[in-house]
Amino acid sequence: MEDRILTQDIPSYIDKEVAIAGWVHSIRKQGRISFILLRDRSGVAQIATNSHVIKKYELRNESVINATGKIIIDSRAEQGVELKLNEIEVLSRPAKPLPIIVNDKAEYQKLELETLLNNRVLSLRNPKRNIIFKLQAKIIDCFRTFLSGEGFTEVTTPKIIVSGTEGGTQLFHVDYFNKLAYLAQSPQFYKQMLVGSGYERVFEIGHVYRAEEHNTSRHLNEYVSLDYEIGFIENEHDVMDLEERFISYLFENINSQYSDILEQYNQTLPIPEKIPRLPVKEACEILDKEYGKKLTTYDLDPEGEKLICDWAKNNYGTELLFLIEYPSSKRPVYTMPIQENPDFSRSFDLVFRGLEITTGGQRIHDYHMLFSAFKKRGLNPEEFDYYIDTFAYGMPPHGGLAIGLERITVQILGLTNIREASIFPRDRNRFVP
Amino acid sequence: MEDRILTQDIPSYIDKEVAIAGWVHSIRKQGRISFILLRDRSGVAQIATNSHVIKKYELRNESVINATGKIIIDSRAEQGVELKLNEIEVLSRPAKPLPIIVNDKAEYQKLELETLLNNRVLSLRNPKRNIIFKLQAKIIDCFRTFLSGEGFTEVTTPKIIVSGTEGGTQLFHVDYFNKLAYLAQSPQFYKQMLVGSGYERVFEIGHVYRAEEHNTSRHLNEYVSLDYEIGFIENEHDVMDLEERFISYLFENINSQYSDILEQYNQTLPIPEKIPRLPVKEACEILDKEYGKKLTTYDLDPEGEKLICDWAKNNYGTELLFLIEYPSSKRPVYTMPIQENPDFSRSFDLVFRGLEITTGGQRIHDYHMLFSAFKKRGLNPEEFDYYIDTFAYGMPPHGGLAIGLERITVQILGLTNIREASIFPRDRNRFVP
Repeated sequence: MEDRILTQDIPSYIDKEVAIAGWVHSIRKQGRISFILLRDRSGVAQIATNSHVIKKYELRNESVINATGKIIIDSRAEQGVELKLNEIEVLSRPAKPLPIIVNDKAEYQKLELETLLNNRVLSLRNPKRNIIFKLQAKIIDCFRTFLSGEGFTEVTTPKIIVSGTEGGTQLFHVDYFNKLAYLAQSPQFYKQMLVGSGYERVFEIGHVYRAEEHNTSRHLNEYVSLDYEIGFIENEHDVMDLEERFISYLFENINSQYSDILEQYNQTLPIPEKIPRLPVKEACEILDKEYGKKLTTYDLDPEGEKLICDWAKNNYGTELLFLIEYPSSKRPVYTMPIQENPDFSRSFDLVFRGLEITTGGQRIHDYHMLFSAFKKRGLNPEEFDYYIDTFAYGMPPHGGLAIGLERITVQILGLTNIREASIFPRDRNRFVP
Repeated sequence: MEDRILTQDIPSYIDKEVAIAGWVHSIRKQGRISFILLRDRSGVAQIATNSHVIKKYELRNESVINATGKIIIDSRAEQGVELKLNEIEVLSRPAKPLPIIVNDKAEYQKLELETLLNNRVLSLRNPKRNIIFKLQAKIIDCFRTFLSGEGFTEVTTPKIIVSGTEGGTQLFHVDYFNKLAYLAQSPQFYKQMLVGSGYERVFEIGHVYRAEEHNTSRHLNEYVSLDYEIGFIENEHDVMDLEERFISYLFENINSQYSDILEQYNQTLPIPEKIPRLPVKEACEILDKEYGKKLTTYDLDPEGEKLICDWAKNNYGTELLFLIEYPSSKRPVYTMPIQENPDFSRSFDLVFRGLEITTGGQRIHDYHMLFSAFKKRGLNPEEFDYYIDTFAYGMPPHGGLAIGLERITVQILGLTNIREASIFPRDRNRFVP
């Protein structure tokens, strides 16, 4: 294991004997000489060998091999160098015919989503699809690195819970030792409680569960939520200021380290200087005036999100837009109303290229106000005492947000279905593989 | 928000006007002067003020305040400096009497576990208890940083699954749109599949679920598993070599950055040069010979783990010990048997100060061997085809492990119950808060 080098590094080993290992990406026979493209996690390298080796070792696509040999210059190889095979060891042979083609670029386009997901392990071997989750890992890494630098503590909160955080939204039921429990829709209550337990600034990267019945290209029933919550804020604009800086940090990192991935998807990521903040009421008026789109409530549907993003791009030159001050009735019970106009709330969404990728806001931190808010919604505060009681013992003003990991991945790469951005997606009809 | 400084930093601001904010940790009246200890996420600072301020602003323990004033030298303050109060703003007043004492050091010892967990937000405000989860966040951070440096990709795999990974062990049931699903006991199958999908090296930090009925001080029903899986290994020793290096990296980081936390718990962390690897068969013989402990199978019970750690400390001077080569029958179906002696397997546990904190091993990567292994265990391979089929299309030799986050936290700090190392633990009787 130790002596193996990555295929991407072979140009640094000219005239040296090295070992590489990976999957046979393709085999091309030219008379007595054959060329194997070997794929590992870093890329693809060319191996040159006598054609009889292919037959002797029964090599075919997706065989797993160890190959040892000298690195020589060959201008016809993509890297300009290739490994001249000396020794070969077959680590694994395909035991069945491949149900899909891994190495064909055209095939990438052709695969139906269902085929792609039913054959997830193989479909992920396609380099263009594989890098989606390298980018996703980078998003997670940036979230964590950025927030750690801002004095946040990473936390892990329970997903088996006794009551929902979003009121009406549907919950998955769990049989918890013969008691009814639910899967968490959000770490909302817990992250607030942890602000109050003295950490002040917490973040979590974890699964959340939504038992919504509808199957759309934008929803998953299990997804990864990037959550943070921050204490001692003035109001919701502090939460947005922080996200603004995070987005810049993220985009800069992707631009500098993963420009090759963006290129493969024909994407560029402009760094926002400042993300405009538009009250949702004004957004609705714009949609009416500019697009003849009439909304009955101050809230945007998916088409509205797309149109307002078009408008913002034309008018502000931005692909990112904060929609702020949602009607209180449209937001969860814990949302802080605007004191002067309590029909509206200190809440926001971030829309990016036509899709909401973040929901956030300031939360109610006053015990009595929160208690009344639950009652006004027809919720029994006593069922939530483990949460509401937190506010009876000294709670700073605070707020936070949640970013949908799969959604931001989709929007960065311009994917068309959120399932492409989930390694093993869960929807109404799918919980395998 | 921007202008506030942390209490830990006030010694750098002598003679300057600053703002600090946090919870009132305690109030001490000395005639006309009162001293407030203000607690924030970084520590505790002293504020000096006229006593009438306490009454005027109704300050009491756990009130949340903003305080502005000049930093002056006061040798009687713990930091050697204090803030001479100029302006105060009360952000939140406790609305109920505190059910437990936050600021009393003795109280920390006295609290029953149940009381501590029922009042989790308040009990976490105690500085000594608060730092448990700062250390835990550091463990997570080190795991991620170390593995990223080794070419691993972070992944997130589903927790709603169609079949268990550990055979017999009990699973929580989820009602998934009127179909029966389960909560994942481990990301085992998925991390192997992702090795095979071309990532080669993956890690995941996520919740796992065990529906075991027993309530012990070492088990949780929901816990965080630090998992990695690595392809192209020679055998299980490569997996252990990597963990050895990770443990050194982790302990070095904790020693250098969190020595204050270790001190508070009277702990030291010796960096292991090399962790001895003892076949479990030999371990059982030692237990018999040295301690008169007879085990009917080659497997260790909790007492056995404690005794063998004592023995290893006395004989090897180590607090960490790999127990290797467990009987195949005691390990999951996917465990690679030792070819020359298939009753034993290429598996290991890592025990640390008397407690198993890791389970790992090499996995079967041959399709036919895996298929037979499932059948031999009386499992229907077709129920697991989404997993087993992976192995039909070229799979490198691979292995991996899982570290229990709460367990390693407990052992580093010398805690007595694993619930102390879970922010909101889940056990047989508890799923609130």
